[in-house]
Amino acid sequence: MSELRLIAEHFARLGADRPDVRLGVGDDCALLQVAAGCELAVSIDTLVSGVHFLSDSDPEGLGHKALAVGLSDLAAMGAEPAWATLALTLPAADDGWISAFARGFAALASAHRVALVGGDLTQGPLSMTVQVHGLVPAGQGIRRSGARPGDLVCVSGTLGDAGLALTLLQEGAPVAADLRERLERPTPRVALGLALRGLATAMIDLSDGLAADLGHILAASGLGAEVELARLPLSPALARQVAECEAWGLPVASGDDYELCFTVPPARARALAVAARRACCPVAVIGRVRSLSGLVFTRPDGTPWQPQRLGYDHFPAAAE
Amino acid sequence: MSELRLIAEHFARLGADRPDVRLGVGDDCALLQVAAGCELAVSIDTLVSGVHFLSDSDPEGLGHKALAVGLSDLAAMGAEPAWATLALTLPAADDGWISAFARGFAALASAHRVALVGGDLTQGPLSMTVQVHGLVPAGQGIRRSGARPGDLVCVSGTLGDAGLALTLLQEGAPVAADLRERLERPTPRVALGLALRGLATAMIDLSDGLAADLGHILAASGLGAEVELARLPLSPALARQVAECEAWGLPVASGDDYELCFTVPPARARALAVAARRACCPVAVIGRVRSLSGLVFTRPDGTPWQPQRLGYDHFPAAAE
Repeated sequence: MSELRLIAEHFARLGADRPDVRLGVGDDCALLQVAAGCELAVSIDTLVSGVHFLSDSDPEGLGHKALAVGLSDLAAMGAEPAWATLALTLPAADDGWISAFARGFAALASAHRVALVGGDLTQGPLSMTVQVHGLVPAGQGIRRSGARPGDLVCVSGTLGDAGLALTLLQEGAPVAADLRERLERPTPRVALGLALRGLATAMIDLSDGLAADLGHILAASGLGAEVELARLPLSPALARQVAECEAWGLPVASGDDYELCFTVPPARARALAVAARRACCPVAVIGRVRSLSGLVFTRPDGTPWQPQRLGYDHFPAAAE
Repeated sequence: MSELRLIAEHFARLGADRPDVRLGVGDDCALLQVAAGCELAVSIDTLVSGVHFLSDSDPEGLGHKALAVGLSDLAAMGAEPAWATLALTLPAADDGWISAFARGFAALASAHRVALVGGDLTQGPLSMTVQVHGLVPAGQGIRRSGARPGDLVCVSGTLGDAGLALTLLQEGAPVAADLRERLERPTPRVALGLALRGLATAMIDLSDGLAADLGHILAASGLGAEVELARLPLSPALARQVAECEAWGLPVASGDDYELCFTVPPARARALAVAARRACCPVAVIGRVRSLSGLVFTRPDGTPWQPQRLGYDHFPAAAE
């Protein structure tokens, strides 16, 4: 009873205005109508306390981030967000915590017209799993495997800010508010993802870091790439850090940026500029896809550079 | 890398033969095609170690149960299973554990032609979240709200076996293998759920116990019901327990049965018998829906009986 009431109180009104939700929270299943001619895009992600966030993290930020991670996956597919489900595991029924979490989740959901259509509230160690559901015209989903030799390698926004914020927090150093926001309230690049339909040949979102995630595009496409470090888009804070201690590892191999990384044929460079402007999202060309396998980074002076680690790995021991 | 490989190794081949999976595990999203004229039914559920199962539970059984719980929700909607996603959180990358879990999950998935289309493997306290996706002809989903006064109240299978098995396990008493199976490898009544389309006026699956779950149907339908305890379908083990100590709480208020509870107009009783036979699933009529609100149980001697608790509640403190 109580768990149903908690869910109902905090979440049920979310996005109730979508006519494609035939039946929302409160039955054995939600019933949803996928628009004719569209494919359904789905992605599921878990955030665990002590692994993905600190146990005393601001719950409103967690509500935002739990959904943002999924919306970023939809963006990377060129899919339009539609619905979400939420499985929330909590040590205790803390109404204040749940309210704040719901506020963060709801604000981002409303901004993208996402309806919450199902949930499960469970007692246990703090974690949250969100599945997002989006729509994409059949055949137009942007996969990782479509890159071609000569394509421009592009990224949105700036790289490494979340990684720098995390490093500073772990050191107990002061973190500027805007930098901390980049870690705790990432912006999923939904409008840009949609604008890149028919333009990007391959796309991924940067959750594990540029080297690892661009690596996934190259592996799926059976190609390699050269990236010029001097062309990486950096915030002023990151640029200072890189200038002081050549910390290329931050923009190249730290996670949680939730920017888009994608490839575009050079002949479409002008269309890309138009799409980026329309989506109000800065885009930088950072390198080129090439037939030779391997991902090569070059320093501003032209010498090669390699990251010490590729990106975040939950089970490093199992990699050997 | 390693987590992707683990997922790929153990799960990726699951159900790869469904042509409606346009893109499966391994990209930012899966891409799925919902059949024309169908609505999408979705449900998400989490099982947490120490709450829903013991930490040393057989992983193969857990793999079965994690999916069975969701398939039972689809059955309760009259939806045909199609796809599943899995978010698995593990303390360590234990290949033997994952293999056994995958085996249990895969066996049930194959039996129902369910494709695993997405996943997330995370380090943390043991828990598993599964979202199931099913298909139902538009408008034919069987909701909780459609019961009408005079309808027969029906249940599938037998009630209380999982509750008895759990009680015995907690007492350290011996448990017969078939009884223990009822707790650890519940059978989702998928074929019966499909056979009840156009026949059942309301339906729910019994996860929290008959009193609580039939209560949800009655609350959603704005009605009451009378249930005769003598008509509850009981296994021999349960019948002995009830005869010895009038333990009606087991079939009425213990959870995890995953049988279907539904209402059918009395004029359709013969069609119901045909549907049950076609689905190879026993069905019992246990009472009647009535206009008077409230759920009333009567003993074999005609006297009223009330359960001491309604059913399982994750946050009992918050109910006050």
